[in-house]
Amino acid sequence: MRAKVHVTLKKGVLDPQGEAVRHALGALGFDDVGEVRVGKVIELDLSDEDRGTAEARVSEMCEKLLANTVIENYRVELE
Amino acid sequence: MRAKVHVTLKKGVLDPQGEAVRHALGALGFDDVGEVRVGKVIELDLSDEDRGTAEARVSEMCEKLLANTVIENYRVELE
Repeated sequence: MRAKVHVTLKKGVLDPQGEAVRHALGALGFDDVGEVRVGKVIELDLSDEDRGTAEARVSEMCEKLLANTVIENYRVELE
Repeated sequence: MRAKVHVTLKKGVLDPQGEAVRHALGALGFDDVGEVRVGKVIELDLSDEDRGTAEARVSEMCEKLLANTVIENYRVELE
């Protein structure tokens, strides 16, 4: 089974990488771009067959390693 | 209008970040995780009202800045 984990910064958390992208876009002439936020997507190949087990295990991976839950949200999507 | 740009490494391109995540997951006991790939999601606030114009402009941003098209694919999603 394949899992996709979407990790995004929580609302209100400053995103310097997004700010840098916005600035660079402005320098290229795209100066009407508003807020830019940059997140991560982590794709995992899992050996689990059962969706429930897989989802629980991926959530555990997020809590322990993939996301910093103080400042980031995550969403697990199974394929 | 809001756009989401998904940037992923092309097939066959080595992903050291993904490999590091796989290794770290293994060290935490998740040792049956197969390949791991790490991508980016860039969320942009656009002032364009027209979907066609917005899509064309975001594709241009990808070609010029957001993606390295030699090693990365991108996908634009408008909301």
